[in-house]
Amino acid sequence: MNPIHAHAATAARAELTAFSYQPEPLGPDDVEITISHCGICHSDLHLLDNDWQISSYPLVPGHEIVGQVAAAGTAVHNIEVGQRVGVGWLRGSCQSCDECLTGQDNLCAQGQATCVGHYGGFADRIRVDGRFAFAIPAGLASENAAPLLCGGATVYSPIRRLAAPHMRIGVIGIGGLGHLALQFARAFGCHVTALSSSPDKEGEARSFGAHEFIATGSPNALKQATGRFDLILSTVFAELDWTGLIQALRPNGRLVLLGAVGTPISVPAMYLILGQKSIQGSVIAGRPLIREMLEFASRHGIAARTEVMPMAQANAGLAHLRAGRARYRVVLAT
Amino acid sequence: MNPIHAHAATAARAELTAFSYQPEPLGPDDVEITISHCGICHSDLHLLDNDWQISSYPLVPGHEIVGQVAAAGTAVHNIEVGQRVGVGWLRGSCQSCDECLTGQDNLCAQGQATCVGHYGGFADRIRVDGRFAFAIPAGLASENAAPLLCGGATVYSPIRRLAAPHMRIGVIGIGGLGHLALQFARAFGCHVTALSSSPDKEGEARSFGAHEFIATGSPNALKQATGRFDLILSTVFAELDWTGLIQALRPNGRLVLLGAVGTPISVPAMYLILGQKSIQGSVIAGRPLIREMLEFASRHGIAARTEVMPMAQANAGLAHLRAGRARYRVVLAT
Repeated sequence: MNPIHAHAATAARAELTAFSYQPEPLGPDDVEITISHCGICHSDLHLLDNDWQISSYPLVPGHEIVGQVAAAGTAVHNIEVGQRVGVGWLRGSCQSCDECLTGQDNLCAQGQATCVGHYGGFADRIRVDGRFAFAIPAGLASENAAPLLCGGATVYSPIRRLAAPHMRIGVIGIGGLGHLALQFARAFGCHVTALSSSPDKEGEARSFGAHEFIATGSPNALKQATGRFDLILSTVFAELDWTGLIQALRPNGRLVLLGAVGTPISVPAMYLILGQKSIQGSVIAGRPLIREMLEFASRHGIAARTEVMPMAQANAGLAHLRAGRARYRVVLAT
Repeated sequence: MNPIHAHAATAARAELTAFSYQPEPLGPDDVEITISHCGICHSDLHLLDNDWQISSYPLVPGHEIVGQVAAAGTAVHNIEVGQRVGVGWLRGSCQSCDECLTGQDNLCAQGQATCVGHYGGFADRIRVDGRFAFAIPAGLASENAAPLLCGGATVYSPIRRLAAPHMRIGVIGIGGLGHLALQFARAFGCHVTALSSSPDKEGEARSFGAHEFIATGSPNALKQATGRFDLILSTVFAELDWTGLIQALRPNGRLVLLGAVGTPISVPAMYLILGQKSIQGSVIAGRPLIREMLEFASRHGIAARTEVMPMAQANAGLAHLRAGRARYRVVLAT
């Protein structure tokens, strides 16, 4: 059996180098995928830096994978050899807890991440449980679909669960996640406001679907939005003006955290009590929502705006993202 | 016109003294109520102490009022002279904002509190907008009904909006609010756990409907409840182990704050993100829910456990509550 040729970091914060490994035998539920594209997600940087203390090395990043099914185990029945599929953050879950049984495997306590304790998608091939591979609709180009597998799922889930067309939605951070959130929220029929510390992103934010743009760097920018939003999605990892954001919510409004800020969220209880507001988290999406999201994106022409680089230049791609220069998602092509 | 005889504090933290005032003329929407009972709520203490910087003096506390309609303005049509009614935290709202129009006057930015900028229910009579007076069902005794007007509304609203019979609910703090929350949650068909720092309350907590009791003072008490609750209602004003409480929630679980803690809530974002958990506030209830709550309480035999004292002993009643000795709600009777 041919070894899999990948790009791995051998220690925290190390550059990627060539790394080959012999895959596990193909189990009855498994598929082998010949990878054509793999998006670079901000969480790949967190894993490479061991920010979450869950990384093991050698670490092969990559969990926004698109490719073609090269082989399928005997029990695989939802996808076929030759089909184009995608794999996201999860490569497995227990399949028996309440969350798994209700299509919320993203909340399974035994969930297995594609590139934590396993080798990810910065590689020519990967073997994963075929139940965690998703057919890519024909209307989506592979390089635009790859970032949907994690970034798209992450923003689609809270919109799908908490938004309605009459609502006013704010999206904080117009990057890999944010530019997708603007598109999905607009397609859901919502009034959409982009909030960004980069005023130069206004034009593109509007092209992605924002009706309004708030440059959060300006003093009093948030004050002018007091009581405006039914839902605010924060896609950033930075510490924010939590009290100001709660004040920017309408009664019953929700602030949803998608980015794992390092410092604790701190907010006076009274700001939540008056107006019945909430702060909540959301994490990727269950498999039914990922499948639905891909169809929805295809039907509405929603796609990640990508910069495609050869996978051999993975280090350059990571550096580009780390520098905050990605517009809006870097995708590696084999 | 006879003056109204009340009990007022003339400055922050002062004892109440006798205070008479001439009421405003009875407007077309107003009713005059001859007060028979008035509950003492923890927020009366906050107002007397000017903790929220919204108090004005002389301050007549009291917003859990029950009495008989003595006079009604020309436009009053929902209640009649002679009828027994109750008044809670709100005595008016704008009647035109989105929240008022959807039965959520508790979220109206122009809401007028019964004893903020107006004279409250520690008095022989009161004049208020009749639209904020609620008929008391015949099945409820006045002294048990009074605390429902604010305390009951405050705990009923989140249960009604967020609970379902299959859920596991935790109630933190078994006092004026908590002992009502146990009763409502049990009547909703939920599995109910009381969480209290007073182990001696276990027996009574179970009599109010708790299936289980957790003494929060014991080390590791919360750890044993990891992943247990769909909904936790916090009725206390103290700083709590926020991270431990978030961990005690199941996936998609909610921690609802009813008591306005002085220090900011602080919690790492990752604890909310993994498990899609939320921290939210809730504030009293809109008029439709108050009306419904009174009917529900009557139908299910839910009543405040009260210690009735003469209104002339209002200072003693306040001191009793302040000392944490109320079992479970002090009600003043004229």
